[in-house]
This record gives sequence, structure tokens and C-alpha cells, in this order.
Amino acid sequence: MNILCLDLEGVLVPEMWQAIATDRGIEELQKTTRDVPVYDDLMQLRLRALARHNVPFSAMLEVIGSLEPLPGATDFLHWARERFQVAILSDTFYEFAIPLVRKLGYPLLLCHTLQVEDDRIVGYRLRQENPKQAAVEAFQSLGYTVCAAGDSYNDIGMLRAAEHGCFFNAPTQVTSDYPDIEAVRGFGELTATLSRYC
Amino acid sequence: MNILCLDLEGVLVPEMWQAIATDRGIEELQKTTRDVPVYDDLMQLRLRALARHNVPFSAMLEVIGSLEPLPGATDFLHWARERFQVAILSDTFYEFAIPLVRKLGYPLLLCHTLQVEDDRIVGYRLRQENPKQAAVEAFQSLGYTVCAAGDSYNDIGMLRAAEHGCFFNAPTQVTSDYPDIEAVRGFGELTATLSRYC
Repeated sequence: MNILCLDLEGVLVPEMWQAIATDRGIEELQKTTRDVPVYDDLMQLRLRALARHNVPFSAMLEVIGSLEPLPGATDFLHWARERFQVAILSDTFYEFAIPLVRKLGYPLLLCHTLQVEDDRIVGYRLRQENPKQAAVEAFQSLGYTVCAAGDSYNDIGMLRAAEHGCFFNAPTQVTSDYPDIEAVRGFGELTATLSRYC
Repeated sequence: MNILCLDLEGVLVPEMWQAIATDRGIEELQKTTRDVPVYDDLMQLRLRALARHNVPFSAMLEVIGSLEPLPGATDFLHWARERFQVAILSDTFYEFAIPLVRKLGYPLLLCHTLQVEDDRIVGYRLRQENPKQAAVEAFQSLGYTVCAAGDSYNDIGMLRAAEHGCFFNAPTQVTSDYPDIEAVRGFGELTATLSRYC
């Protein structure tokens, strides 16, 4: 029995900040970890945009609550949970992710927390440095072999630390920066790749 | 967001070996971690009994497949997964547990593996020394506070390592050996205790 670590946004569910960007018409919020590799830079950009546009936290939750898992994600996750112990490693925040995690049937999610005051996001707390890589190494310290799939720069540490890591539906810009990491597209290919390890 | 580590047998599902013992009329298999504190001793006793009675692995799986989660366990787990990230830490084996884990909605399960040949259990592989305590410490290394509940001697390491550990429906023999560990009975009390940490 191996552990499977999966990124959340772009893999199982839509990009939540982009959904908020589209709903509120805030162009800066379209950027993701694919565009801004340093996560703290990305979050500072997001918080400035939210403050400038005076976006209530509750309005963001309403947008996120209307999202659904990506097509095929629920079936894929069911397949995966029959064959692996699955952990979602994400740089999102529990306060955002819970409605979607509920729709996915409560897989274990390791991510970060927001600081919310008076219906405004005033800050955030990252759980630790290199959180995805640290989580992979923690599972390895428990005697597990780890498989992993993600789509962006913030997944590199996880993909490299895992015994078997691959990009899933990653943009060409990301995959061409890391040509040594296997890149698969679509749940059919991902399932075929993972089948080698279960 | 805290992690909640739960024992499996006696907490969420019935004792699987006892179900097999009853089904096959094999008295030695009634013993659990509550009776034999050293897990390896217990497993050697079980394997000898299985060999002596020539019990096929498939017959054991049939008994396990007929088991259901304990009354209230599914509702409790749903309550817990809304409020914690839940990990099941068990000294059972994946080959045994999967039918029950499926009925519980696939919570993350960290346990051991069996060696099966020609429909007979010929051995087992424990994942590591002190596996429950190591798992709690791994989650703590990722920046989490850990709550834990279990019912037996093999849970002591987990309950002591966790920031908030308690016995759940443990026999008096166990709780009186560890009077410093909080002991709760029934899911109502467990929920009340855990509510302090979520």
C-alpha cells in the first residue's frame, strides 16, 4: 500500500482564486502559482487586490461554494482511494477548501489557514516552509512509498521528493522548465501511470 | 485545523479477529491488544491458531466483509471530518481493513500489510516500530496539533504523543493501568471532549 499525494486546484477542483477573479472582474486575481512561482509574492499580490477592491470574505465563499470538482475528478479519486492512501497537499486555505473537500468525500487535506477579521482576509498563516515536500517526507518516514501528481511550480518539491512524481495537466511553461519530470494529461493517462504503483 | 488520529477496531468498527474467532469457533483468536499488550506476541499466537485450524484467508475476508461499522461510528466520523483532518492509525492490515474502510467512506488509514500465499496468511509486515506514535509525531512535524482516541494498550504511544489524547470505550483493565489518560465512553462524550479542540 502506497501513499498518493495530490495537488488540489487544477487537479481535482478548479482554481478558486481565478473563479473569484472572474466573478468580481479583478484581473490580478487570475494569477496562480503557475504564473508567480514564489507563493508569498502571489499571496501578497492577492491580498492587495482584495483590499483595493474591498472584497468581503463571505462573497468569496459564495463563489467557492458554487464550484464543483473538475470533470472526472470524483471518479478518479474513488479509483485512487481503492488503491492508495490519498492525501491532498495544497497551498490553499482550509477556510476556502472545505466546501470542495466535502464534495470530494473528505479526503485528508494538508494546507494553510487564513486570518479573517470583520469579513475581510487580513492575512494568512503558512503551515511551514516547503509544506508539500515536508508532507511527502513525513509519509516516507512512516515507511511508505509516495506517488504524487501536481500541475504547478509549488508542486516541484513534492514531485521531486516522491518516489514517483508526475505533472498532471500542467501548462507547457511549467513542464518545459522541468523536462525530467514525467508529464501526463487527463485522468486516463494519470490512472495508467499510477497503475504501475498499486 | 487540527489532526484527529483514531484507532479503528473497537472505536469505529468491531474487532475483526474476534469476529473470525466467533465464526470459526477458535477461542485463541478472541484475544486482542487489550489482552496481549505486545503486538508481535499477539500476532504469533494468531498465526499459530490459524495454521492449527487451517483457516483459509478467503474465509476470513468473507467474515470481515459481513461486518458493519459500530453503531454511531459513521455519524461520528462525518462529524469529525467536518472539523478535523482525520487519520486512522491501526495495527490491523490493509488486506483486512479495506472492506470496512470503504464502508466508512475511505478515511486515510495507516496500518500494516499481510503476507498471503495460497490462500493462507504466512506472515505479516509491521510498517515500523511504534507506528501510531510515529504517525502522530509525523503530523506534529508538519505543524499540526494532534488529538487522538483509542481503546487499548497499543494506543498508549499515540495517546501520549498527541497534544490531546483520550481512551474511548476502553476496558477498565486498560484505563486503570493509565489513570492519567482521560477516558470517555460513547460517541456523545467523545464528541464533547473533541469539541474543545476544533
